[in-house]
Amino acid sequence: MLYYEDLEVGFERTFAEQYQVSEQEIVEFATRWDPQPFHIDRNAAETSIFGGLVASSAHVFCIYVKIGNTEIDRDKVTASASALGFDKLQWHAPIRPGDTLRNGYRVVQMRESRSRAELGIVTVASRMFNQRDETVFTLECTFLVHKRPEAEPPA
Amino acid sequence: MLYYEDLEVGFERTFAEQYQVSEQEIVEFATRWDPQPFHIDRNAAETSIFGGLVASSAHVFCIYVKIGNTEIDRDKVTASASALGFDKLQWHAPIRPGDTLRNGYRVVQMRESRSRAELGIVTVASRMFNQRDETVFTLECTFLVHKRPEAEPPA
Repeated sequence: MLYYEDLEVGFERTFAEQYQVSEQEIVEFATRWDPQPFHIDRNAAETSIFGGLVASSAHVFCIYVKIGNTEIDRDKVTASASALGFDKLQWHAPIRPGDTLRNGYRVVQMRESRSRAELGIVTVASRMFNQRDETVFTLECTFLVHKRPEAEPPA
Repeated sequence: MLYYEDLEVGFERTFAEQYQVSEQEIVEFATRWDPQPFHIDRNAAETSIFGGLVASSAHVFCIYVKIGNTEIDRDKVTASASALGFDKLQWHAPIRPGDTLRNGYRVVQMRESRSRAELGIVTVASRMFNQRDETVFTLECTFLVHKRPEAEPPA
């Protein structure tokens, strides 16, 4: 795990985890949460401005959360205690059936918590990109990060 | 529908739509997208800082999107062409099994589109609240809103 002491402004990582999204998943997710024609109806989607089915923005946010949770390469994962908020969510390009998605992040701000000595507050700029390295989704996430326990030596 | 001309800074609405969230839904959603113990394991949740199961932040965002999509009182719904982005997402209080959620919004900024005369760009501050009127989630959403078609008289 990456503790607060392992991070600095400008620190960058790309998760190893990849996520491939299927047509069935796009339709099922949107049918439940965001039932707009260009997410759930292939024919309607083809005549829409997207020219085909695209994933709901809520679905994309869930994939972002999922990739952060399932990353197995632990030296890419920060020792997060809790997310404090998300900012600047923007969807830059459509995500279509069969696309394979990955996430990267860069630390843009960090400081020690004033109220809890064992925690820091870190903001990262995250980027989701597809198999052509096109940026599809960006956001900033601010979260509480544990400092390294005294018993544990530096990585 | 509310067109661009029907809105002004300070304009407020609360959706009629209500959404009750069940324990089963909290666990199923988080198992799929955000499998942290306090979202998926009742016993682990009881000993966590939340003292019981709570909905994932991704789940809360999906409920927010869902309520906006299923509102049946059309004079509370803006004629949105597309969301441009979301900002300042913050979760203020836990959402627990059985909670009933509603959404309200207030227009905080608006201007005409420079490139497309038939559209305006509107930012709303949204608030989700529970059955005790406690604010549980806030965010800002910026989206393209249609101007009233010339054939259609003012509401």
